[in-house]
Amino acid sequence: MFHQSSDTICAISTPPGQGGIAVVRVSGSEAFNICNRIFKPARGVSLGEGRRGASISFGHVCRGDKIIDEVLILVFHAPHSYTGEDTVEISCHGSLYIQQKILGLLLNNGCRVAMAGEFTQRAFLNGKLDLSQAEAVGDLIAASSAASHRVAMQQMRGGFSRELAVLRDRLLDFTSLVELELDFVDEDVEFADRRQLKELASQVAAVIRRLVDSFSTGNAIRNGIPVAIAGETNAGKSTLLNRLLRDEKAIVSDIHGTTRDAIEDTITVDGLLFRFIDTAGIRETRDTIEQLGIERTFQKIEQAAIVLWVIDLTNDIRGMDRIAAQIIGRKQGKKLILVLNKADKLTGDEREQKTAYYNRFNEDCIVISAKSNTDITALERKLVKAANIPQTGENDVIVTNLRHYEALAKALSAIERVMEGLDAGISGDFLSQDIRECLSFLNEITGKQIGTEEVLDRIFSRFCVGK
Amino acid sequence: MFHQSSDTICAISTPPGQGGIAVVRVSGSEAFNICNRIFKPARGVSLGEGRRGASISFGHVCRGDKIIDEVLILVFHAPHSYTGEDTVEISCHGSLYIQQKILGLLLNNGCRVAMAGEFTQRAFLNGKLDLSQAEAVGDLIAASSAASHRVAMQQMRGGFSRELAVLRDRLLDFTSLVELELDFVDEDVEFADRRQLKELASQVAAVIRRLVDSFSTGNAIRNGIPVAIAGETNAGKSTLLNRLLRDEKAIVSDIHGTTRDAIEDTITVDGLLFRFIDTAGIRETRDTIEQLGIERTFQKIEQAAIVLWVIDLTNDIRGMDRIAAQIIGRKQGKKLILVLNKADKLTGDEREQKTAYYNRFNEDCIVISAKSNTDITALERKLVKAANIPQTGENDVIVTNLRHYEALAKALSAIERVMEGLDAGISGDFLSQDIRECLSFLNEITGKQIGTEEVLDRIFSRFCVGK
Repeated sequence: MFHQSSDTICAISTPPGQGGIAVVRVSGSEAFNICNRIFKPARGVSLGEGRRGASISFGHVCRGDKIIDEVLILVFHAPHSYTGEDTVEISCHGSLYIQQKILGLLLNNGCRVAMAGEFTQRAFLNGKLDLSQAEAVGDLIAASSAASHRVAMQQMRGGFSRELAVLRDRLLDFTSLVELELDFVDEDVEFADRRQLKELASQVAAVIRRLVDSFSTGNAIRNGIPVAIAGETNAGKSTLLNRLLRDEKAIVSDIHGTTRDAIEDTITVDGLLFRFIDTAGIRETRDTIEQLGIERTFQKIEQAAIVLWVIDLTNDIRGMDRIAAQIIGRKQGKKLILVLNKADKLTGDEREQKTAYYNRFNEDCIVISAKSNTDITALERKLVKAANIPQTGENDVIVTNLRHYEALAKALSAIERVMEGLDAGISGDFLSQDIRECLSFLNEITGKQIGTEEVLDRIFSRFCVGK
Repeated sequence: MFHQSSDTICAISTPPGQGGIAVVRVSGSEAFNICNRIFKPARGVSLGEGRRGASISFGHVCRGDKIIDEVLILVFHAPHSYTGEDTVEISCHGSLYIQQKILGLLLNNGCRVAMAGEFTQRAFLNGKLDLSQAEAVGDLIAASSAASHRVAMQQMRGGFSRELAVLRDRLLDFTSLVELELDFVDEDVEFADRRQLKELASQVAAVIRRLVDSFSTGNAIRNGIPVAIAGETNAGKSTLLNRLLRDEKAIVSDIHGTTRDAIEDTITVDGLLFRFIDTAGIRETRDTIEQLGIERTFQKIEQAAIVLWVIDLTNDIRGMDRIAAQIIGRKQGKKLILVLNKADKLTGDEREQKTAYYNRFNEDCIVISAKSNTDITALERKLVKAANIPQTGENDVIVTNLRHYEALAKALSAIERVMEGLDAGISGDFLSQDIRECLSFLNEITGKQIGTEEVLDRIFSRFCVGK
């Protein structure tokens, strides 16, 4: 295990800015001593004295005789804290001035400012969480949709870790059987029934493969499903985008504490996050398809998983054959939805006729009017369908983290080599090497085994400070 | 006293946005019942059961079987809480999604979203704080300098209230003496020695006058001292402003949790806040003084208490007589500091000569170089001196609130009428009326007596939600 810093660390753990309350967190062996130097309890007991476990104290944070704030202090004795260390949480008034002053006082009295994610890193190093659980804490805080929240919560609560533990047990059984043979290598015995071993290996491989495969779903859930809105100038692209976003905005902004910034140009439908990529560029484009071809537009939407092709129903269909053919030819595994816009300007007959025409090119068509807000909800339902995220249960394990995915992919290769080796009848020591390798990749995920200290630093550096 | 809402209220009390921790506060008679519906404690005790006072519980916020978050819950039994009501503080992960979900769950289970300042309003209505203390909570949160913080803290801790209580006691003594006479009005006796009464009234008036007078200081401390930077094009105004602001920025931004937005174009020197007014306009102005006269510039700096007139020392002094005369003639009680800039481009002799020249117009001159960052600190010291904020002790009461100032001014008029009445030898019942009026204005400040419910609404509406 890595060297653990013995510094006592502190940070403002609540969101940056001014509010009713802010929380300053202090963790480490000196937490109680340092806080006692700046805290005068209303009733005479020093922090850290009295009963073990968690307790609340009320009093003043002072600098000498000067009262900085009236605060509530939560005291957690090691190991009964988030980090597993002695921890103090100072709940103060949420003034920027006070937050800074308290942080400054802690620093002057022997604390160091915590690095991003350092509290969670300490929780990991103290065995309160395994590494995949610790990573899930960061995901949980960043989660902005029901699906990403559910997956992160499941992972934080150890669902993924339990699945990996089962795999590990099986591989350890496996390797112990094989390695037993190695002790008797001269006698050329085979304790381990090769057929049984192969059965076991293929079961393990199946589980790992399922986890590897879940990553495409997991990635979509965690980062959102990229959607591009394309179409000719004046087809109503930006009206449509604003319509989709405005609906969302209304929902989001009626609850205090949400900022549009964090979720700019994303919408959540049925708990799934859709991310509109590079839409500013698309919004600005003034090139008609006829002039520059669809090449440039398609370059922009290269990253999209779903393309909404917005068509102005009032336009003449002449020449659309050629354009449509190009679009269809280029959809390259993306989901394409033709959005037939400005339906309000057509008679029922015209609408039917044109819809039938476009339907020939692409089965997935929807008739809407962005301007009069007609059938936008139906379009959102189409988005969910096109996202094609498999229905996952509350307890299904889904891999969302690239590091986990890469480790699992390597573990899969290793176990596949084991299976090949069994087919080829290679000797136990070679088998054992591959099984050990498979195990080691799985252990990387939960942090039982870590390559370098930099890996940890990289993992926790994407956390916010204060967690 | 006003009708108190029996609703149980909730709000996110930490600053808006994403962070490590967020706190959702719930207060009211149903706080425990509502929270028990959405909270599953890790150990079996329901919230609000067990020992009275403050306690900590760990567990999960759930919606049905779905876990929304692992949380820490603080339980405060009435009256041992901030509001004086049963209160629950849910310390959750600081994800926007989780904050919204928890708030949503509380609303679905019978809470109402708290209005701005409603927790503090309830603390007032439940007698935990008087009105001036409650108002100080808002000031404390908004305080962005050592001085404004000190004054708000002093007020929140009841310093102002104690001063008012002393005044009230004296006035009550006074009125009881006078009113005793009224019972014996037919007998034409005077229990109260008129000379003694006058002594008392003048003492009360002196204290109130001191408080009224402290408002100009208090206002400067609370809202910052407005400073305008004026001068000819290319005199180096914006370089100077950036220099002043940049120094501050460096100090502020090395501590997490501070946003420049909140303190844009302000600096703090010696714990005093200086606010540069309308500097964007001044920064952009391209009109030379000669062309348009100083009229327009002076209109812009009308609100300033201090004017920094930046002069390019390398410019010819010809014609400056006329300009300087205009400036001096217009300073209208503002402090004027001539900032002689670009000192680095002059020889020692030239510098001395020009400084002597400008010194004739205005005693307060300082030679600097904004570009090479020379003597900026000396200029800051000059700002502090020009601000002329009286040295105030830790416990001096300073009025910072316009509502208090207005009530005190009315109380002062009333007590002055009493003094005039005593001189004129008017009868006890008229005296008594004025004394009662004076008392009633003082009582408005602490909320013992309030005009209308709207007064309360206006006071608390400038708070943040969640406090």
